[in-house]
Amino acid sequence: MSWTGPGLTTEQFVERAFVLPPTISDSAITGVYRTPLSGESDRLVLVGHGGGSDDAHKHSGYIVSMAGLLAQRGIASLSIDGPGHGERASFSFQGDHDEIERAWVGGGGTPGVVADWRAALDFIEAERGARPTGWWGVSMGTMMGVPVIAADDRIRLAVLGLMGIWAEIGPDLERLAPDVTCPLRFLVQWDDERIPRQTCFDLFDRLGSTRKTLHANPGPHSGIPRFEFESSADYLARYLR
Amino acid sequence: MSWTGPGLTTEQFVERAFVLPPTISDSAITGVYRTPLSGESDRLVLVGHGGGSDDAHKHSGYIVSMAGLLAQRGIASLSIDGPGHGERASFSFQGDHDEIERAWVGGGGTPGVVADWRAALDFIEAERGARPTGWWGVSMGTMMGVPVIAADDRIRLAVLGLMGIWAEIGPDLERLAPDVTCPLRFLVQWDDERIPRQTCFDLFDRLGSTRKTLHANPGPHSGIPRFEFESSADYLARYLR
Repeated sequence: MSWTGPGLTTEQFVERAFVLPPTISDSAITGVYRTPLSGESDRLVLVGHGGGSDDAHKHSGYIVSMAGLLAQRGIASLSIDGPGHGERASFSFQGDHDEIERAWVGGGGTPGVVADWRAALDFIEAERGARPTGWWGVSMGTMMGVPVIAADDRIRLAVLGLMGIWAEIGPDLERLAPDVTCPLRFLVQWDDERIPRQTCFDLFDRLGSTRKTLHANPGPHSGIPRFEFESSADYLARYLR
Repeated sequence: MSWTGPGLTTEQFVERAFVLPPTISDSAITGVYRTPLSGESDRLVLVGHGGGSDDAHKHSGYIVSMAGLLAQRGIASLSIDGPGHGERASFSFQGDHDEIERAWVGGGGTPGVVADWRAALDFIEAERGARPTGWWGVSMGTMMGVPVIAADDRIRLAVLGLMGIWAEIGPDLERLAPDVTCPLRFLVQWDDERIPRQTCFDLFDRLGSTRKTLHANPGPHSGIPRFEFESSADYLARYLR
């Protein structure tokens, strides 16, 4: 298993799908690799999606949008379906609080998430070569990002946020956050109805990076303003080296 | 009284000093108007300095630096000495907590600060014409900025921060903050040893703007990173219209 077909050209990027063998869970890794319309890139960002919905996966609207913003800036991106999401879903989400945890555990938990992302990055590097690599992911994208960045020093710049030292994943995030040492930006939605604000501050405080900036905007969990997405793409484009 | 001499050309801008008659206090208004080396600008930012030191005035290092960052982006700026600071000082600062309050009251309090800044803006508009106008000022620059912006709708974009609903000025800021309705960016130093973090959040919450973003960086009150200064100049350059 690897590439599953020819490139699909959209208005923003060329997307190529792949499937990789399972790592810790029994679920094959389904992913996409996106390159600028201008061609291959000398930089790569791993884009991790949010969770808890049947619409949360590697083709979520804002994930495609972020990949487009990166491609406009000449940056390739890689997204895989998170544990129990997208093509890897084993149940349909109803909106219950404990569904992300159920999907997470079913996907091998934190070790499974780390193994999946590292396998995907290994695959892309084997196919396209190693390059300066960053992370973009909020909410479940940060639940995944903190353990992955802590484990893999190929990731040297990150945009995180909308997550705290909170819920079942909290102890893992608390334990691993100090091992995240790359420069990063951390997004907070000031009126987040899902993740208590103080727990986000706790995670921000705990991250080991000396260069970290918190950006907060009014509004609910899903309300990151468009300009903040654009600004995070600018941030990656400016500092990923 | 008005312009006090010919323009002084630095590496960053052309600076021209002025003196205006006292408004509410008995202290003449001492200020500078700075234009890009390329010539007159079609946009203006009022740059308010911090307080509580003999080095805090219209020629403070970071004030000159901010004026330079704006001038590089083609934006003119205006700075006056705050109440009891710079050329308007009536005593030397020793670092005591109550000295800013003493200087503030001696300068006519909040009404005096508002009257001084409005007189300075009136003067520059009479001399150079009305233009889209913004505010940049942290710490005492926000103590001044909130009342001035609340009173004067010529100011349509702002960078504020390093100040809370706090100390003697607190009630004035609490009362006037809802009248600040322009888009703004609010800077917080996460480890601010002078202004309690929660009081900064209280002020951010209280500001009437619907479009407001908080940027926080680790470090003490005086430790705003260079990139954040640059980013705030970029913000003004991008959105001041």
